[in-house]
Amino acid sequence: MALATDILKEHISKTVSLTDEEFAHFSSHFKPLSFRKGQAVISEGDLVDHEYFVIEGCLKAFYINDEIKMHILQFAMPTWWTSDYEALYNKTKAKINVDCITDAEVLCLSNADREKLCKEIHPVEHFFRWRTNKGYVAAQRRLLSLMNNDAKTRYEELLKLYPQLYNLVPKHLIAAYLGVSRETLSRLYNSNRNVM
Amino acid sequence: MALATDILKEHISKTVSLTDEEFAHFSSHFKPLSFRKGQAVISEGDLVDHEYFVIEGCLKAFYINDEIKMHILQFAMPTWWTSDYEALYNKTKAKINVDCITDAEVLCLSNADREKLCKEIHPVEHFFRWRTNKGYVAAQRRLLSLMNNDAKTRYEELLKLYPQLYNLVPKHLIAAYLGVSRETLSRLYNSNRNVM
Repeated sequence: MALATDILKEHISKTVSLTDEEFAHFSSHFKPLSFRKGQAVISEGDLVDHEYFVIEGCLKAFYINDEIKMHILQFAMPTWWTSDYEALYNKTKAKINVDCITDAEVLCLSNADREKLCKEIHPVEHFFRWRTNKGYVAAQRRLLSLMNNDAKTRYEELLKLYPQLYNLVPKHLIAAYLGVSRETLSRLYNSNRNVM
Repeated sequence: MALATDILKEHISKTVSLTDEEFAHFSSHFKPLSFRKGQAVISEGDLVDHEYFVIEGCLKAFYINDEIKMHILQFAMPTWWTSDYEALYNKTKAKINVDCITDAEVLCLSNADREKLCKEIHPVEHFFRWRTNKGYVAAQRRLLSLMNNDAKTRYEELLKLYPQLYNLVPKHLIAAYLGVSRETLSRLYNSNRNVM
């Protein structure tokens, strides 16, 4: 897992500097896990005790409502973090599911180890504060966009933010992220292709 | 401003323990400000350098779209924090507005001072990490609710989470938070009263 540790090191180094000793201690708390395409990482009703740092592949965090309609809360690509954070932080049961869109390699970190590491190494606490700050801002931006923009604008925003998503993720999942039907997405996709 | 400092002390004590010396240093970086009902705290296009901890009154963070329709991102009541966090963290111009629904007393903290305090006092960094964690979870919960729930369910959720909001905030602003018309809100409000 040398490669996975290198990816983690590069990721955290963008925010904080750790000594080699500190990083070795930090990274020793992460466990490598492999998942197959379609495999569940978190299922609704689970007690959630871990978060996941994606090394390879693509995961999705989603919610299935009473009408068996899927809403996608997040895609998680390499160097992204995912979990059911409400369940993880509040020690409640998962309300969402996380599964693998492709085969995936992740590093998993327990809640208790994150808190321990944050206490032991001040820069680690700084790193996790800034990771959440960015997540908070992204969630608020998406909230505003959902309240305010039509499907076409939201589609173009997604395309601009994550161009790589379109090669990784089937179209019906992108539709479930945008909250539109597959037919609407096809129309947007084709109209966009014509002007590019 | 003894009272404001006490409120801040009680607020931060729920998450971390600071010595009297540490708290005195921490709180000395906050500036008390008074606003009149209707007064703007942040206007779209401003450079945003501060966040605001509400001592008294109620503020709103909102966005006005091209059709001059208002979307409310957040209400901020006593012991809540507000700002345009995207602008504050990324040092970009404000995309949203923050103003006062009532006369308000706040304590304001600059971005630079927050970062300095987080570096100087490890528990302060811990406090701000958990404040953002909670904000992130709340934003994700609202995102899911907006994608998945009808107006009636979202109205009832808001009523349950913040019962005090209904005495503080005019009905048309609650409608703008829920993303429904004032008429729809009146219908929900009346139908809810009948069953209570």
